[in-house]
Amino acid sequence: MFNLHGKDVVSILDFNRELIEDVFNAAYIMEKYARGVGLNLLKGKIMATLFFEPSTRTRLSFESAMYRLGGSVIGFTSAEASSVAKGETLSDTIKTVENYCDCIVLRHPAEGAAKLAAELANVPVINAGSGAQEHPTQALLDIYTIKRELGRVDGLEIGIVGDLKYGRTVHSLVYALSLFNVNLSFVSPPGLRLRDEIEEDLRRKGIEFKYYEDIEKIIPNLDVIYVVRIQKERFPDPAEYLRVKGSYKITSSLISKAKSNCIILHPLPRVDEISLDVDSRPQAKYFIQTYYGLCMRMGLLSMILANKEDLKQLFYSSK
Amino acid sequence: MFNLHGKDVVSILDFNRELIEDVFNAAYIMEKYARGVGLNLLKGKIMATLFFEPSTRTRLSFESAMYRLGGSVIGFTSAEASSVAKGETLSDTIKTVENYCDCIVLRHPAEGAAKLAAELANVPVINAGSGAQEHPTQALLDIYTIKRELGRVDGLEIGIVGDLKYGRTVHSLVYALSLFNVNLSFVSPPGLRLRDEIEEDLRRKGIEFKYYEDIEKIIPNLDVIYVVRIQKERFPDPAEYLRVKGSYKITSSLISKAKSNCIILHPLPRVDEISLDVDSRPQAKYFIQTYYGLCMRMGLLSMILANKEDLKQLFYSSK
Amino acid sequence: MFNLHGKDVVSILDFNRELIEDVFNAAYIMEKYARGVGLNLLKGKIMATLFFEPSTRTRLSFESAMYRLGGSVIGFTSAEASSVAKGETLSDTIKTVENYCDCIVLRHPAEGAAKLAAELANVPVINAGSGAQEHPTQALLDIYTIKRELGRVDGLEIGIVGDLKYGRTVHSLVYALSLFNVNLSFVSPPGLRLRDEIEEDLRRKGIEFKYYEDIEKIIPNLDVIYVVRIQKERFPDPAEYLRVKGSYKITSSLISKAKSNCIILHPLPRVDEISLDVDSRPQAKYFIQTYYGLCMRMGLLSMILANKEDLKQLFYSSK
Repeated sequence: MFNLHGKDVVSILDFNRELIEDVFNAAYIMEKYARGVGLNLLKGKIMATLFFEPSTRTRLSFESAMYRLGGSVIGFTSAEASSVAKGETLSDTIKTVENYCDCIVLRHPAEGAAKLAAELANVPVINAGSGAQEHPTQALLDIYTIKRELGRVDGLEIGIVGDLKYGRTVHSLVYALSLFNVNLSFVSPPGLRLRDEIEEDLRRKGIEFKYYEDIEKIIPNLDVIYVVRIQKERFPDPAEYLRVKGSYKITSSLISKAKSNCIILHPLPRVDEISLDVDSRPQAKYFIQTYYGLCMRMGLLSMILANKEDLKQLFYSSK
Repeated sequence: MFNLHGKDVVSILDFNRELIEDVFNAAYIMEKYARGVGLNLLKGKIMATLFFEPSTRTRLSFESAMYRLGGSVIGFTSAEASSVAKGETLSDTIKTVENYCDCIVLRHPAEGAAKLAAELANVPVINAGSGAQEHPTQALLDIYTIKRELGRVDGLEIGIVGDLKYGRTVHSLVYALSLFNVNLSFVSPPGLRLRDEIEEDLRRKGIEFKYYEDIEKIIPNLDVIYVVRIQKERFPDPAEYLRVKGSYKITSSLISKAKSNCIILHPLPRVDEISLDVDSRPQAKYFIQTYYGLCMRMGLLSMILANKEDLKQLFYSSK
Repeated sequence: MFNLHGKDVVSILDFNRELIEDVFNAAYIMEKYARGVGLNLLKGKIMATLFFEPSTRTRLSFESAMYRLGGSVIGFTSAEASSVAKGETLSDTIKTVENYCDCIVLRHPAEGAAKLAAELANVPVINAGSGAQEHPTQALLDIYTIKRELGRVDGLEIGIVGDLKYGRTVHSLVYALSLFNVNLSFVSPPGLRLRDEIEEDLRRKGIEFKYYEDIEKIIPNLDVIYVVRIQKERFPDPAEYLRVKGSYKITSSLISKAKSNCIILHPLPRVDEISLDVDSRPQAKYFIQTYYGLCMRMGLLSMILANKEDLKQLFYSSK
């Protein structure tokens, strides 16, 4: 329970299975405090949310997590409202803001921004999305949702549908899932398959995975259908985009071919990858997924920032 | 005092006179805590302020109210800083954010946005202005100001001056005033009179009202002069706008014809509907009106969110 | 210790040496509480940060200071998110917001904005930068950093390098330093020397100062090297700018000619006035300067807002 105390969370690659289970245990304890009551665990602590790109879910759930734990929040929601508008570098911003807070939650468009910030800062840095590759807390909340909704992660058939090449959340998720004993099905247009390095990593770890172009073939087998956006700007030919987009849309009639107890997840925001009539299906779990995200972030912040005695007491009293 | 517990505040039409008086009682109690000390009544509670349009008064007074009551605030101040920038619908934003908070305060340019949000969310939704028609908490604070400054609402002569057709605050205010025993004078250019449906509603309720084009005729009779902006963009002919605008401007010399104990209100922001030399007149109450707005919103939030036992204790101890 | 109780902080001209020392004493006490624990001194108090211009350091450090002291914060970070976008004047914004808070921290592009706000508001107003001339809390934190890092201010050789004419921080700093017994060296291109009125003021106070164009000549004598930006847009001829810029850049090789125990300060953000390799020099103090800024602002807010009894107790218990 103290393995993250004072630590950065930069990449899902820094997590092993044991640490992920620790975070899930913390998240589960936090479910008791995630609605309307809260804790004093982080009273007096300040989190800085430095968001150089817009975000609803990630920023608001980190902030809500901090408030539920009794802490405070400073920060900015776009580069324009900060000294970046006057030409300040990320390094200088970090070396300044670390003096005002107890941890930094950073979203930045550049690859490696969170890593750089973590190296520079004397306070813990949590990566809330940097560049196209890493979004570790999203992966943690995704898998926590699976565990909470299906009772386990090992042994599941998990399908990931959409843009597997450019989606920021996919990379972190696949790496995290590779620590579990799962079968992975990747459903995408041929041009949007996993990047080579991730594919190789999966092989090295002995994870079973297959590619599909047609979601209908595989959907009856899936326990988890994880949907990500296919972005128009990835296609040189707009007509090709329109053709492809339709085939990966999750509709109510498609879901009628799925297991009755499968779950549908999405990192959100969705545009139209999941049609609205799916929302009322019992398998639709992408909104409660945001709630689990709050609990997971409360757990994570507690493990990083809480006084060890207080944390121990909370954990034992919750057993 | 528990009639709003866990409830939405979408439209002033949902209020009857008794409920308005309840809110006023709560607001009055809050005057003791609205400056510099505060309460712990909403400790641990989180309010989300989702503002899709700019606002100073409404947003800051809701946030101040929440802090004075011991709670916390998350949110955004423009659509650009949220996932709306990535194409997310209002529904998806609401179904996400409800998981992070205990109530949602929403301002949105679309008619019916607050109603939709209230139907979707499991937490109470407070309408902080949606579309051109509804701004219920503004109406409540307007009438609370009248009550506090003049000691009563019934029996008063109330004049509403300016754009009665498009002003968001006018509609909610007129509906709310129709629950009291007042005489209404509407002063506007012919093209900016009340919408038909509101006029009919007033007739049905037996409320006395008259139209005037010339404010000088009626001003000596008024107890309350409520001024709203006339917006340039409502006039096809800019020359017509300039001509009309001048006639509805409240000046110090105009006020010298008014009752010495009348009060001048304005929802603010003003542009130049009230000249600056009116500010020092004793009748000018549009700034203290913002203070009453804070107290009223503290009362409202308490009624909606506070633990019933705590609320009861506060109310009884304040008698 | 009570000399700022309920007072505005508009201009450094309102400070005498005794008051500055009081603020430094308060800042020093706050160093104990500036990291991770905090105080309840301002519990229930609300600070409004009204930033009409972007800022990282000033806004975030004021907000952090308020949270470390147990208070809350409302506000906006750009004019666009407020009613200014609808044409509201600064006066009306101030006369509104004062009803929602216990003090206002204002940054505004207009000269005299803070003075105007202070005259209007019934709550204390702190100038966080107005127009090109005044930024009093920056000057206080600059000198506090000198005192903390060098143990004293009197008797030091202080060089100010860069744009002395337009830099907002320079004016407040020079006035504040004139209350101490220092020798000042001003290093700038001829066209960017101090404004006449400041120069005269220094003479009147009997402060020793000299102008230099070449930093190499004076650097071996300096105890403090205070660097400010030279902005391109001040030069009619871009070629002249490029020529001049290079001569005022602080590099590691330049610093090797300086005293080993001198300190380099900068109000930040820097663009490239100090090269990155200087950051690792022991003389580089511009990041810890931001930390001292937090402590100084905590001290200042306490002196202005805290209950006198609580403040007295804190001060005596800290002796």
